[in-house]
Amino acid sequence: MAGQTIEARRPSSRSKREAILTAATASFGKDGYEDSKWADVAKAVGIGSTALYHYFESKLHCLYSIMADALEGRLKEFEADTKGASNFHEALVTVLRAGFDLTEQEVMCNRVLVAEQALLAMHRTSPREEEARQRARERTRDLEFAWATFLSRAMEQGAIPEADARLTTRAVLGLHNSVWHWYRSGGDLTLQQVSDFYVARCLAVLGVPAEAPAGTRRRKAKK
Amino acid sequence: MAGQTIEARRPSSRSKREAILTAATASFGKDGYEDSKWADVAKAVGIGSTALYHYFESKLHCLYSIMADALEGRLKEFEADTKGASNFHEALVTVLRAGFDLTEQEVMCNRVLVAEQALLAMHRTSPREEEARQRARERTRDLEFAWATFLSRAMEQGAIPEADARLTTRAVLGLHNSVWHWYRSGGDLTLQQVSDFYVARCLAVLGVPAEAPAGTRRRKAKK
Repeated sequence: MAGQTIEARRPSSRSKREAILTAATASFGKDGYEDSKWADVAKAVGIGSTALYHYFESKLHCLYSIMADALEGRLKEFEADTKGASNFHEALVTVLRAGFDLTEQEVMCNRVLVAEQALLAMHRTSPREEEARQRARERTRDLEFAWATFLSRAMEQGAIPEADARLTTRAVLGLHNSVWHWYRSGGDLTLQQVSDFYVARCLAVLGVPAEAPAGTRRRKAKK
Repeated sequence: MAGQTIEARRPSSRSKREAILTAATASFGKDGYEDSKWADVAKAVGIGSTALYHYFESKLHCLYSIMADALEGRLKEFEADTKGASNFHEALVTVLRAGFDLTEQEVMCNRVLVAEQALLAMHRTSPREEEARQRARERTRDLEFAWATFLSRAMEQGAIPEADARLTTRAVLGLHNSVWHWYRSGGDLTLQQVSDFYVARCLAVLGVPAEAPAGTRRRKAKK
């Protein structure tokens, strides 16, 4: 693909793409996708609309790319946190806490992900938009599958009570995702308070008592 | 307002409005709001675009009206189910189960509500759109307030453990709302199976043991 060849030749190209994604995430997260102006994103990065088009064909293409990249990042982090886990309870607490151990940029990204989820259901005729949309949808499924596999193994090991692993995955991810509909940085609650509350409730959904086994109870989320 | 005067004079006007809302909910729920064609809704109801405009100024005005009406309905049902409750545990199980005791039309409505939530954040310049949008936002807040008040009282009575009532409300409603992102009638799971699973998990989030006190345990959701 032409874009990839050019990116390989120009080392600054990747960072420019990142800069556009960062500015767009901030704008979509703050004002909402519909109310955000694509031209304002170009302006924020200091790029002309022709150059912008090289990276993203449309505001929607950029949105899908934000979603796909974010989900790819989440999946990699989940795999790193759970790979070769022998203590499933500890790994569970780690991944649940990691879901709230976020930068402001990642919070904004989560807000965009949950708010604009409906747009992922629309088929697109543009190949670039459709590629990014499909990538976001596939990573959503990959992440659900990775969670369900992990929970199945935790059930087999007796770390959590037996239940439908797919439904349990949906409940835990649904509970986590619901936070980004209302959470705002600088509001009444710190992210740490939200994390403490929601990690405990996710464990409750999984049937794990709030009083964790010794050794994991005092473990703190890395900052 | 002209619309109301005409509605009062013409008894069929209300049912025509309902028919449009029903057709639009089915279309938005099935194909998504963005991909639904406003002209197709008019066609489904057998109404011309001029007559359609009498009821709804735009597709968005109709969407906001669907949301506001649905939230108004939920609020009324919640108030009826919890009014004068003396057994808080029983009332809690009743309202949680009522959240899944739905017609196909109500399932579609829930799907539209959660999928298009982001559109409620957009300010509108059209007075009719803005009125319906504000009504939907106010009912969302009213419903959260009613839940938080109910949970506070349940905590005072010792029916559920003490916790932040507003955060607990958000967690329970977040968990319930997450279902409508993926649930489809005629899929692998019946609504009753989903209800059994999620009501138990909502109770877990509230800190209520799965084993309910005698007398409420065998209570079945009304069909």
